[in-house]
Amino acid sequence: MTLPRDYRGQTCALARSMEIVGERWTLLILRDAFYGVRRFGEFAAHLGVPRAVLADRLAGLTEAGVLDRRPEPGTGRREVYGLTPKGVALWPAVRALTAWGEEFHPADGGPRRVFLHAGDEAPLDADGRCTGCGTAVPVTDVLVAPGPGLAAPGPDADPVTAALAQRHRLLTPLLTTAPTGRSTRGSQR
Amino acid sequence: MTLPRDYRGQTCALARSMEIVGERWTLLILRDAFYGVRRFGEFAAHLGVPRAVLADRLAGLTEAGVLDRRPEPGTGRREVYGLTPKGVALWPAVRALTAWGEEFHPADGGPRRVFLHAGDEAPLDADGRCTGCGTAVPVTDVLVAPGPGLAAPGPDADPVTAALAQRHRLLTPLLTTAPTGRSTRGSQR
Repeated sequence: MTLPRDYRGQTCALARSMEIVGERWTLLILRDAFYGVRRFGEFAAHLGVPRAVLADRLAGLTEAGVLDRRPEPGTGRREVYGLTPKGVALWPAVRALTAWGEEFHPADGGPRRVFLHAGDEAPLDADGRCTGCGTAVPVTDVLVAPGPGLAAPGPDADPVTAALAQRHRLLTPLLTTAPTGRSTRGSQR
Repeated sequence: MTLPRDYRGQTCALARSMEIVGERWTLLILRDAFYGVRRFGEFAAHLGVPRAVLADRLAGLTEAGVLDRRPEPGTGRREVYGLTPKGVALWPAVRALTAWGEEFHPADGGPRRVFLHAGDEAPLDADGRCTGCGTAVPVTDVLVAPGPGLAAPGPDADPVTAALAQRHRLLTPLLTTAPTGRSTRGSQR
């Protein structure tokens, strides 16, 4: 059954949010943007989403001011996608939905990824506060680290999957462009 | 473009969450369940969602253990939908997405609804903590109250819309069945 993209007759704030981030794949694309994915091809390879769907979602998120297109740092030759402040403000929602999935549909062997406070490397609690120092940790101070349920990436893993097997600060580009034009891992912290 | 309901190849916790709550209308149905909507006809009238879609979503949420069907308190004659503990655990996600919509796509005149701590009636902050006493307020102690942007319901408003114009504790049934079988408003606090 095809449903319209807008929620006719619904004027509440949640409906307005869902008109922007409620399409299929949208929140997974945003999750990858928090993890530092920047380029179209990296999103496509990591998510396995059809390219037409990815293009539609990236265009919609850019039009809504959640993502922007910016020159790739260090090269200036190509455009990459990045979260705007409006996009970064979605972190509590992404974190809460991820935590709910971890709690009620846990992966074999435990969480695949855990979130830590960069200051003291203590895990965040269910409210996003540091279990070590009690701080409400801003997004820019969150580390995403492999959890016990994450299998080691195979030799054929795409570069994003391989980079995500390393501890990494949110919002920091996962991959950078070497002078040869080949992707290499960004700094790990 | 039709996309499968599951996220093939995606094993992260967020993808598992979105397979359950990421369908169109699902989070709005859950929002109404937090507000105390219990009956099929009330969801249908308040949301304006096609009945076949509503039936599909309620069945899916029940199968996933997010909602359950229970006898209506006080009558025992009919079944109503209620949030299970697994469903109640979605509150941080629903609240975060609502807060994001209020911040970046505000309604004319201000928020339509505000969330207050039942203990001291102070508003909750962006993290769901009470701005009066600092408590991380559990869902059962949250009041939803009309905000400055909520228009007074007209004489033809459906019963849910009319009841939601009153301050009300989350998870408490909005409408109860009087001995005549007619719906009446639940207790307001």
